[in-house]
Amino acid sequence: MERKNEADPAGTPNVAYTMGSGDEDEVLAGFRRSIDNIDAALVHMLAERFRITQSVGRYKAQSDLPPADPAREKEQIARLRKLAEASNLDPEFGEKFIRFIIDEVIRHHQNARDN
Amino acid sequence: MERKNEADPAGTPNVAYTMGSGDEDEVLAGFRRSIDNIDAALVHMLAERFRITQSVGRYKAQSDLPPADPAREKEQIARLRKLAEASNLDPEFGEKFIRFIIDEVIRHHQNARDN
Repeated sequence: MERKNEADPAGTPNVAYTMGSGDEDEVLAGFRRSIDNIDAALVHMLAERFRITQSVGRYKAQSDLPPADPAREKEQIARLRKLAEASNLDPEFGEKFIRFIIDEVIRHHQNARDN
Repeated sequence: MERKNEADPAGTPNVAYTMGSGDEDEVLAGFRRSIDNIDAALVHMLAERFRITQSVGRYKAQSDLPPADPAREKEQIARLRKLAEASNLDPEFGEKFIRFIIDEVIRHHQNARDN
């Protein structure tokens, strides 16, 4: 991310604005900077989501509630598909995504119950 | 989401503050409202991410670039693992998550190239 031109009077081409290393070009590099920003946001939102589900896991373990809740999952999937449609995300992918997250959460809840 | 007590002089119990339907209780309902907010944010971030990767897919197809880029993927995975560690998300899950997304993106890029 260092801007070489500012530090280098010999004028080494600025990789951020011209060609990247290997097969990356300027247009692709621009797209990738946006993707990297979004991925950082996604990771932090996921981290917060798992902070909450960890509390849910402890609470379920204390209260002898089962790790999985099929009725809640059905609601979540239906809601996610609607949100996906509204934001032009493929609803099939929206469903796959929430199932991917829920499976991880159930695994955590089972661990919380077993340990 | 309607607050029944305000509209109902008979004082029907307000489900948002007492018991939910089925096996849901007040503590769990509170956690779930936060999870639902985060999920809406995640879906919208993902929708924006796929808007960008759709542009990437079109650009790669026009420029005869391959749908997958193993060097970029390696960088993304390493970066995501670091971001996951920094936000106390399981780095293994961080890696699984980015692979899940990348696999979907490659599928889209292959479709863009083949159609």
